[in-house]
Amino acid sequence: MRTMRAAVMRDRKLVVADVPAPEPGPGEVLVRTLACGICGSDLHALRFADQFVATARRAGNPRVMDLARDVIMGHEFCAEIVEHGPATTRALKAGSRVCSRPLLMRATGPQSIGYSNDNPGGYAEYMRLSEDLLLEVPNGLATDHAALTEPMAVGVHAVAKARLDLDDAPLVIGCGPVGLAVIAALRLAGVRPIVAADFSKRRRELAVAVGADIVVDPAETTPWQSWREAAVWPDPARAPQQPAWMPGPPLRPAVVFECVGVPGVLDQVMAAAPRGSRIVVVGVCMEADTIYPMLGITKELNLQFVLGYTQEEFAATLRHIAEGAIQAAPLITGTVGIDGVAGAFEMLGSPERHAKILVKP
Amino acid sequence: MRTMRAAVMRDRKLVVADVPAPEPGPGEVLVRTLACGICGSDLHALRFADQFVATARRAGNPRVMDLARDVIMGHEFCAEIVEHGPATTRALKAGSRVCSRPLLMRATGPQSIGYSNDNPGGYAEYMRLSEDLLLEVPNGLATDHAALTEPMAVGVHAVAKARLDLDDAPLVIGCGPVGLAVIAALRLAGVRPIVAADFSKRRRELAVAVGADIVVDPAETTPWQSWREAAVWPDPARAPQQPAWMPGPPLRPAVVFECVGVPGVLDQVMAAAPRGSRIVVVGVCMEADTIYPMLGITKELNLQFVLGYTQEEFAATLRHIAEGAIQAAPLITGTVGIDGVAGAFEMLGSPERHAKILVKP
Repeated sequence: MRTMRAAVMRDRKLVVADVPAPEPGPGEVLVRTLACGICGSDLHALRFADQFVATARRAGNPRVMDLARDVIMGHEFCAEIVEHGPATTRALKAGSRVCSRPLLMRATGPQSIGYSNDNPGGYAEYMRLSEDLLLEVPNGLATDHAALTEPMAVGVHAVAKARLDLDDAPLVIGCGPVGLAVIAALRLAGVRPIVAADFSKRRRELAVAVGADIVVDPAETTPWQSWREAAVWPDPARAPQQPAWMPGPPLRPAVVFECVGVPGVLDQVMAAAPRGSRIVVVGVCMEADTIYPMLGITKELNLQFVLGYTQEEFAATLRHIAEGAIQAAPLITGTVGIDGVAGAFEMLGSPERHAKILVKP
Repeated sequence: MRTMRAAVMRDRKLVVADVPAPEPGPGEVLVRTLACGICGSDLHALRFADQFVATARRAGNPRVMDLARDVIMGHEFCAEIVEHGPATTRALKAGSRVCSRPLLMRATGPQSIGYSNDNPGGYAEYMRLSEDLLLEVPNGLATDHAALTEPMAVGVHAVAKARLDLDDAPLVIGCGPVGLAVIAALRLAGVRPIVAADFSKRRRELAVAVGADIVVDPAETTPWQSWREAAVWPDPARAPQQPAWMPGPPLRPAVVFECVGVPGVLDQVMAAAPRGSRIVVVGVCMEADTIYPMLGITKELNLQFVLGYTQEEFAATLRHIAEGAIQAAPLITGTVGIDGVAGAFEMLGSPERHAKILVKP
């Protein structure tokens, strides 16, 4: 049996270990991990492992990872085909670079790659992938940039679920990797100006690099003041009629992307959002959170929770990155080997230093 | 100055007192209250007065009631015009029976009737109303039934905000007056079968009376099991394709109306709802509430908070009640005078005895 080096979640800690390499089953291929981004959700899953499992079980997920057994995380990867399992078409040859949604499509239902005891993710030398989901990385696209397909697809999906109209005025709360992906996708959708807020100077710079028009430091000014200025109708003749007693000019509809995912932020957004706002919850909060439903009711807010992406959105994101329509490169702020994964998890706690760290096994 | 008898919220208690009658300003009429329903929100507003005020302030409401001063609640009324203020058209004569949204339209903006220190509601002999908002009660419609326009309009609005498709499969959680109004409005919209759940036998009977097709006692069986049975596509040929590994038949999209409004219910609904469900939050929870955003994210849930109704929805509701298209009469379970308001607030705590109690000053 082939073994491989991996950064393993074991006893709620990350350790480096030699573990059995996976075997590709029918319709599956064995791939070598070339680069795999570290996701904020992995930091959360390690830190709040028990809550993660409890919530997944409560949500009715039929395959929840067992924390008493090893888990190899990592779901944002670019890899190279090593060998084909049985019942494969071999449409892509060994040596081809590929991206894939982090799922194994089995006859019994889809299984997670990366949050699973059975299907190792990209913090290891080898993975098995479903041949049906493979997307070839276009010639000329750097492996590191291709590895950003997954996180950027999260933004593309969130923006799609927001069903934006060109008259909508977006506000992005939080410019970590999730917020940056949303900003890049908003830029692609052409819904502007894009107002984005983060306490970190470095992250505000990254927000501009991927397409934000206006960035705000919430320590200095409320993001909503900047949003209100940006949300004035450029052509007042197109603005809807507003009663005379309402202060200020009419504003375009607010669509807020909550990309922080820590308790309390949703409540702040619900308190500050104007009447009728749509709030898209993209940041993954794994803890309990307190809201005041009365705030939502008084203002008739809409909350759309989102997760993941479709196969079509994933493929389109890879294409957009290759064509430069989505700016992904600025996100990469560091690279580590398997030995460096635990340290990288620590470093990602500081928003001034890092956005996306790639693991190269 | 004219005085009147009223049930007054004073020092966070209900007391009977003689207070000054309101004077109609420009564009306003003085009316005599004929019947005024007691709303669950009034029970909440009395019990959680400080939270009510704090949340209204936090939501940016420019006119929040001052609990150190008297408040006369009551916003579900049918009344009779007594006299016209200055600058009125007098299109409806004195003696006409009218309904109105509980708002005064002033040049400085709308003001609440019933949650206000200045504008007494229907738990008093007189109110002032805006002439522009008056709707004449059709001949032949009983005053008591006309007084149900406001609560039934809440259901009509909630169903409108849900933007239902005829393929959607509704589930109503809670059959108090709000849930009953939603059931009546769903029946009007023709979206069936209507599954409704309440622990109270009396309320389940009322749910059937206003239009529910299937009622469930959550103490005996989960509402979701009944919903799943009801949500099977009647014509399997129209059902969307479903992967072979998914258990059970494909189900129509779930639209859940949360009509309870007490902490914890939203979390239960989010945990039990199928992937992609839309949850319409109609029950008014004035306390803090705990949710697990991860449940919403995993299943990409949508939460639409709703409040009130438009003038058009209000007028349509009055018409539908008059024509019998909305069943409102079964809601009325009791009648009290001004002296009985405080006692009625107590009695409404028991769901086996009462749904809607009307105050007749």
